[in-house]
Amino acid sequence: MTSTQSVTVHGRDYLIPTRPTVVICVDGFDPSYLSAGCEDGITPNLATFVKSGFYTAAKCVMPSLTNPNNMSIITGAPTRAHGVSGNYYLDKVTGKEHMILDDSSTIGTTILEQFAKKGVRIAAITAKDKLRRIINRGLSTDRGAICFSAQRANECTREEHGIKDVETWLGRPTPPQYSGDLSIFVLDAGIKLLQENRADVFYLTLSDWIQHKYAPRSTEANEFMAQLDQRIGELVKLGALVAVTGDHGMSDKTDEAGNPRVLFLEDLLQEKWPEAGARVICPINDTFTKHHGALGGFVRVHLLKSTVNVVEMVEYCRTLPEVEAAYTGEDAAALFEMPVDREGDMVVIASKNFAIGGRKDEHDLSELMGHRFRTHGGLSEQAVPLLRSEPLGAGADIAGRAWRNFDVFDIAVNY
Amino acid sequence: MTSTQSVTVHGRDYLIPTRPTVVICVDGFDPSYLSAGCEDGITPNLATFVKSGFYTAAKCVMPSLTNPNNMSIITGAPTRAHGVSGNYYLDKVTGKEHMILDDSSTIGTTILEQFAKKGVRIAAITAKDKLRRIINRGLSTDRGAICFSAQRANECTREEHGIKDVETWLGRPTPPQYSGDLSIFVLDAGIKLLQENRADVFYLTLSDWIQHKYAPRSTEANEFMAQLDQRIGELVKLGALVAVTGDHGMSDKTDEAGNPRVLFLEDLLQEKWPEAGARVICPINDTFTKHHGALGGFVRVHLLKSTVNVVEMVEYCRTLPEVEAAYTGEDAAALFEMPVDREGDMVVIASKNFAIGGRKDEHDLSELMGHRFRTHGGLSEQAVPLLRSEPLGAGADIAGRAWRNFDVFDIAVNY
Repeated sequence: MTSTQSVTVHGRDYLIPTRPTVVICVDGFDPSYLSAGCEDGITPNLATFVKSGFYTAAKCVMPSLTNPNNMSIITGAPTRAHGVSGNYYLDKVTGKEHMILDDSSTIGTTILEQFAKKGVRIAAITAKDKLRRIINRGLSTDRGAICFSAQRANECTREEHGIKDVETWLGRPTPPQYSGDLSIFVLDAGIKLLQENRADVFYLTLSDWIQHKYAPRSTEANEFMAQLDQRIGELVKLGALVAVTGDHGMSDKTDEAGNPRVLFLEDLLQEKWPEAGARVICPINDTFTKHHGALGGFVRVHLLKSTVNVVEMVEYCRTLPEVEAAYTGEDAAALFEMPVDREGDMVVIASKNFAIGGRKDEHDLSELMGHRFRTHGGLSEQAVPLLRSEPLGAGADIAGRAWRNFDVFDIAVNY
Repeated sequence: MTSTQSVTVHGRDYLIPTRPTVVICVDGFDPSYLSAGCEDGITPNLATFVKSGFYTAAKCVMPSLTNPNNMSIITGAPTRAHGVSGNYYLDKVTGKEHMILDDSSTIGTTILEQFAKKGVRIAAITAKDKLRRIINRGLSTDRGAICFSAQRANECTREEHGIKDVETWLGRPTPPQYSGDLSIFVLDAGIKLLQENRADVFYLTLSDWIQHKYAPRSTEANEFMAQLDQRIGELVKLGALVAVTGDHGMSDKTDEAGNPRVLFLEDLLQEKWPEAGARVICPINDTFTKHHGALGGFVRVHLLKSTVNVVEMVEYCRTLPEVEAAYTGEDAAALFEMPVDREGDMVVIASKNFAIGGRKDEHDLSELMGHRFRTHGGLSEQAVPLLRSEPLGAGADIAGRAWRNFDVFDIAVNY
């Protein structure tokens, strides 16, 4: 491959890198983890990125959730371009609800797929297997792509994942699904692939298990951030250019007594407008319910019986202290560049210290007890760091830019 | 002038219109005023724009205040481009605080100025005179530009404003500074100039006196919206293409007992970090204090003695229920495309139902009593309508756009 080659995805060009390039998505990477880590000396390598590489705050896509943002990162575009604006949907055509478990809802190609087609060796490693089956779109092991998850490391096959016997190879057992080590495993696998020169472009995407439970400066968060930082330093030492961002931030949503602060919106709307048949869809809902009990900061409301009250409902929701913003589905799609065909009749976004759920009987809060309840999905979790191990080259047109986390491949390969 | 001529401002081209074109900025145009107006039949002309013209929700620039957004609208660019990111500043070089009262803080040109240089006859009419002196940048009465305010309509001179004897000409006395009629006067003047063929491009920017006091669907708001809508219909009937947006939205920030919900942040920070010398600057502060008591949803914190605690302060502010988001000044500038040289050490954004002030003794709340306290400045007031009297022409590349209020001149002249 030559340095002048490039690929184009959703209208943006990406130069094919001539050196190993690692893009890391730290799940739940609230800027406060970075600022605390740098200030307290917990993350010396990331502190070096901030000081002598490139750092800016950036916005993630709304809703501030894992699937939409991972897809935006590997396509360099908002959700309207790739179609994935949640983990969980109500299909307006069939009326059925479904969880996104693979790439069948995705529109178009990805940067990883286009690179692979040009002969670039891709390694895409996820913490959670649910995400592996979404981001592996178009990645063929025939072309040498490696794509597996830490969660199912012990099930990898050469045919499906481009790698096998991962536990033996890495010298580590598959980590527990609910652990910080699930993320560190991803980074360790990336390091080893780099050491063995088995890939050119790496996408390493982690889990937010730690961030959901532990605030910045807690012992657990510090330990995790130190391990993360150490691995990032290792990747730099091995000669890679490293770019880092987050899929979303994280906010505490616990009251003084330690209970989750939750608005059960479907119950409320059903009581007030029984004739509307309001169904609240929580797009944070995924197979990792222990993280958050399917409670986040962003919900879609579908009016299954009558939509005549939608404007009145939007106005009403805006008056609730648990709500930061409410819009008709069309307005929300326009504001947040989301695909309008997957929107509800109304979108409701929680205030920073609240989560929004559907019916109380649908959410299992038992797993949230005994620690702080922290989650995401709303506007207050939109800020994430955007970092690179080296400064952007001269001539980078960055003065007027509103940075997004989905610019991370752009800063990784284009400057 | 020919149809193929265009001007360029901050990298975007604007075609010189071949028919009368009116851009209206409705101050405090929360989307709920539009949705209630359309639903209740109060705003039939705007309802026609929504149905058979062009309508989308759009985001205003942060902070969601009048000066920054008016400058963004007439430059088609974020505040980083034109430099006006508040009504009130602490100058970091001199250490002095000052109110923006003219265009001396502005960087670069405006769309109005560039049109005027090409021979387009501009009429820029503001409700408040403070805004007139900001947006008249580069508008020369020698070239036929008309630029005056309703507030000082009785003081207009041919030399300074391009028009004189406005009261006699319009057959109306100068309206009270604190009134909805201040806005309607602006529209009436625009209509008359159009009838008399005295301008080609109109920028009519209103006052949010009504919106600060009265919620959508109140008698006062309905009356104002009906008058506004009737004037917009008149402009359309006269053959103009009309595009409408808002400078910001508006949220209620009153508690159950009817008192303003305010966090006095400087008092709090001084108590907690006396060594830091925290000074809270409220960029909503202007000469129209009866509207809001200088209380909005966005403040800048300058640490005059020591900046060592800024990360800790950001973290602390994030824990406050009155706060929706807090960032270092640099992060906020990156997130919201604001000029970093005018940022504080920290930016704090209020939750939807709260305002943030500096010291309690600096704010006069007496004018806010006796009615609901409604204000803006934060993220919850970022959504505004973006409307055009006619649909965008075929071939308009709008599918993937994140609309901003400062796209209003683009939609007015380019499609």
